[in-house]
Amino acid sequence: MRQRPLAAMLLLTAALASANVLAATHKVEIPVRELDLAIDNAGNTAPMWTFGGTIPGPLVRVTEGDVVDFTLLNEAGNKNSHSMDFHAGRLDVLADFEAIKPGQKKQFSFKAEYPGVWIYHCGADSMSEHISRGMYGVVIVDPKAGYSDKYPKPDREYVLVHGDLYETGASAEERTVGEKWKGVLVNGKVFHYDPVHDANASIALESKPGERVRIYFVNAMINEWAAFHPIAGIWDRVWDNGNPQNVLHGMQTMSVPPAHAVVVDLISPADRPTNNALVDHSMKHALKGGITVLMNSKDANPDKGRGDQLILR
Amino acid sequence: MRQRPLAAMLLLTAALASANVLAATHKVEIPVRELDLAIDNAGNTAPMWTFGGTIPGPLVRVTEGDVVDFTLLNEAGNKNSHSMDFHAGRLDVLADFEAIKPGQKKQFSFKAEYPGVWIYHCGADSMSEHISRGMYGVVIVDPKAGYSDKYPKPDREYVLVHGDLYETGASAEERTVGEKWKGVLVNGKVFHYDPVHDANASIALESKPGERVRIYFVNAMINEWAAFHPIAGIWDRVWDNGNPQNVLHGMQTMSVPPAHAVVVDLISPADRPTNNALVDHSMKHALKGGITVLMNSKDANPDKGRGDQLILR
Amino acid sequence: MRQRPLAAMLLLTAALASANVLAATHKVEIPVRELDLAIDNAGNTAPMWTFGGTIPGPLVRVTEGDVVDFTLLNEAGNKNSHSMDFHAGRLDVLADFEAIKPGQKKQFSFKAEYPGVWIYHCGADSMSEHISRGMYGVVIVDPKAGYSDKYPKPDREYVLVHGDLYETGASAEERTVGEKWKGVLVNGKVFHYDPVHDANASIALESKPGERVRIYFVNAMINEWAAFHPIAGIWDRVWDNGNPQNVLHGMQTMSVPPAHAVVVDLISPADRPTNNALVDHSMKHALKGGITVLMNSKDANPDKGRGDQLILR
Repeated sequence: MRQRPLAAMLLLTAALASANVLAATHKVEIPVRELDLAIDNAGNTAPMWTFGGTIPGPLVRVTEGDVVDFTLLNEAGNKNSHSMDFHAGRLDVLADFEAIKPGQKKQFSFKAEYPGVWIYHCGADSMSEHISRGMYGVVIVDPKAGYSDKYPKPDREYVLVHGDLYETGASAEERTVGEKWKGVLVNGKVFHYDPVHDANASIALESKPGERVRIYFVNAMINEWAAFHPIAGIWDRVWDNGNPQNVLHGMQTMSVPPAHAVVVDLISPADRPTNNALVDHSMKHALKGGITVLMNSKDANPDKGRGDQLILR
Repeated sequence: MRQRPLAAMLLLTAALASANVLAATHKVEIPVRELDLAIDNAGNTAPMWTFGGTIPGPLVRVTEGDVVDFTLLNEAGNKNSHSMDFHAGRLDVLADFEAIKPGQKKQFSFKAEYPGVWIYHCGADSMSEHISRGMYGVVIVDPKAGYSDKYPKPDREYVLVHGDLYETGASAEERTVGEKWKGVLVNGKVFHYDPVHDANASIALESKPGERVRIYFVNAMINEWAAFHPIAGIWDRVWDNGNPQNVLHGMQTMSVPPAHAVVVDLISPADRPTNNALVDHSMKHALKGGITVLMNSKDANPDKGRGDQLILR
Repeated sequence: MRQRPLAAMLLLTAALASANVLAATHKVEIPVRELDLAIDNAGNTAPMWTFGGTIPGPLVRVTEGDVVDFTLLNEAGNKNSHSMDFHAGRLDVLADFEAIKPGQKKQFSFKAEYPGVWIYHCGADSMSEHISRGMYGVVIVDPKAGYSDKYPKPDREYVLVHGDLYETGASAEERTVGEKWKGVLVNGKVFHYDPVHDANASIALESKPGERVRIYFVNAMINEWAAFHPIAGIWDRVWDNGNPQNVLHGMQTMSVPPAHAVVVDLISPADRPTNNALVDHSMKHALKGGITVLMNSKDANPDKGRGDQLILR
C-alpha cells in the first residue's frame, strides 16, 4: 500500500501570500495512484485508480478570487495515462486537461471565479473507466462575500461524494453503458457511514441537536442521477452548485445529475436527540450502498464536521 | 375486499382545536392493508400493500404550523411489518419510523413547519418492495401566509401520484434494480384518467376554460425520474416542493426525482374549450400508463378538483 | 434525396406585418419527409422521419406576443401519419395536435405568450418512434422586454439538440423501453461537431476569446435525461426553459429532462485562446456521440453563431 494520509495532501494546499492581499495562491500537487483499496467496511478491496491514494481525492478549499496553482503527477509505477479536469475553473480542454503518461508531470493554474462546490475528475480516455474506478474529488470555493442571512454560517460541514462501484473486471465499454454496475460508494465505501445497515461500519456523521449541518454533496456516478434526501429531515435550504444566489427552501429531495454538486443544509430538532439517514432515494442507489447516518446528540464529537474532518476517513 | 371509502379516512384528519388559535392539531390514523386492488380501468387486480386500502393513501392536508398527531395501525391480518416515513416532518428515523408487526400500533407527532407538498411512504425493509406495492400518499402543507400574487389561489386542485407497477411476483431485489417493471400507476391505475388511450377509462380531470388548475404532482416511483409536462399547455408557474419561494415561470417540463413532489399551475385558453394530456414525457412512462386527460369546457363538473375530489377515485 | 436547403425553410418563417405594430404573425409551413439521412460525419445513413428534411427541423424564432400561423404538410410519398406538437403554445391536444395522413394538410395558430426555448415534435402514435426517428425541432421565443442586465445580449448563439439514435429496425416498443439504443445525435449526427473524437468531423462551434456564447440546448431524447456541461468552462448563467426569470448562476452541469430545453451562457477567458467540449456528462451519452467542440480563438469565423448559422448544418 502506497497510500499516504490525507494530512500530507492537505499541507500542499496551504495558501501562499500573494501580492494582492485579497487573494491567495494555493499550490496543489496531487499524485495519481493506481492501487487496491478497501471498498467496504469489511475491508474487501478492489483495484482502483485514485487522486492521492484515497477516494475521493484530497479536498481543495479556497476562497472566491483565489488562484489554484496545480500540478498533476502521474506516478511512475502506474500503468495508464491520466489527466485532471477541474470543474471549478475556466481553462482549455485540450491544452490543460490533456492526459499524461506514468512518470510525467503537468502544471496549470486557474482562478476560482465562481463560488460553490465542484467536482474534479480524470478525463483521460476512457473517461468512464477512470471516473468509475475512483478518480474524483472536490473543490469548495467559499464566497468572497462570506456568510450572511442568505448564506448562513453552518455549525458543521461534511463532504459526501457518491460514486459507482462496478464489478472488478468490468470493461470501459461495459462501464460506459452501465453494465456490471454493483453499487454506490459513499466517500469510497458502500454503506461507509451506516452502522444501521452494516455491522462493520464504525463511523457516522455527528452533530448536536439544533445545529445547522451543511453537506457538500457531489455526484461522481458516471451515468446515474442522484436523489439526495435526509430521512426524517428536510433540507432547510439548498444552493444549487453551492452558489449563494441559487437558493431553494424547504426541499425534501434534491436531484443531482452526474458530475454536478449541491450544498444542502439540515437543521435537526433542538429539543431531542434524533437520527437522520442521508440517502440517495433512488432505491437502486440507497439499498446498494448510498445511505449515511447522521446522529444528532448532545454528546456529538466536537471535532467531526470541522477542520480536517469534513471528509471522514 | 376490506377497502373502506376515502371519506372514512378523511374524517380522521379533522382539525382539533388547540390552545394556540393559529395552529391546529390533526389526529390522523392510518391502517395498513395488504389486499388485492384493481390496477387498471378494466378491473384487473394485483396483490398490493396500502395505507388505508387505496393507492395513494388518504390525503393529509394541514396548514403550516399545524401539528399532525399520527397513529399507524398494522392490521392484524397482514403478513408483513410496515412503517411510516413522513417527508413533511423533522423526526427520528430510528425511533419514529421504525417498522411494526401485524397487530401493532405506533404513534408519533410532528409539526408541519415547511409549506409544500410531500410524499409519505413505508420505509420497512425492503423499502423498494413496500413502496412499489403501493405504500405511499401525500401531505399538503398550505402556507400560513395564504394566497398572494406570488402564490395565487387556484380555481381547481388535483393530486396526481405516479407510482410503479411491477409484474406480480417480482422480488424485492428485482424491484430494487428495476427488473420486471411494467408500467406507471396514476393514482393507483395505469391510464387511470385517460379515456383517449383506454376504452375502459371513465374519469378525466375537468376545469372550465381560463381556470387556473393546480396539480400537486408526486413521484412515488422507486427508481425513475419523472418529466411532467402538459401536452398542449404550459406550466404557468411551478413551485419546487410546493414552496411558494421556489418559483419557476413558463415551464414546459418539470423534472421530479423519486420521492419528491412539485406544484404546477396550468391555465387553459379562456376563449375556447380545449384538452390537455398531463404526461410523464419520458416515453417509457407515458406509453405505459402515465397519461392523464384534463378537459377544459364550460360544462366542467363543478365538484371536481374541489372539496374531497382532489384525488379522483 | 428530397432534402431542401434550410434557407428554403427559413423563408417561410418571415414575419408578416400585422394590425398590431407590436406583434407579428409568422406563417410557418413545414413539410414532413421520410427519407434516408446521414447520421454521422462519415456519411452513413439511416431511415429517418423529419420536419423539413433535416434533423432538427427548421428553427422557428419569434418574439413574445407574436402569432405563429402554422401549416403541417404530410407529403404524399410518406408512409405514416404524422402530427405537430408545439410546446411553445397553449392549444388543444385533440383538435390541433391530431395526426394527418400522407397527402393531408393541417393548419392551426398560436400566440407565443411565454418567452424561452421550446421543443416541437411529432405526437403521432407511436410517439416514441416518431420522435426517435428525428421528428423534432426548436422554437425560440425572444422576450418582449429585450435584453437587460438580467438577460444580457449574447455575442454568439447556437442551437444544440440532442436526440436518440436507435438501431435501424428497432420497433416502436423497443424504442419505448430503451432497447437497441445506440447513441446520441447532436443536431442529427453523432459527434457532429467534434473533430477531436471523429476524424470525419469538419465543423466546430466557434467564438472569440471573451465572448458570451449562448446555447439553446434542447433534449429530444425520448427517455434519457441530459447532464449538459462545458468541459473547461462554467455556465455563467442558466435560464431554465430560457425564461429570463428562471436564472441560475455559475453552474457546472444542467440537468435537462426529456422534452425540455434550457438556455446556458458560456464566457471564455478573454486573454488566451481556449477550447471547450460541450458534453452530456452522462458517460453513456458523451461517449456515444454527445460531444461538441467550441473553439475560442481570434480567428473565429464571424458568421458562425449569427444570422442563419445558429444551427450549423
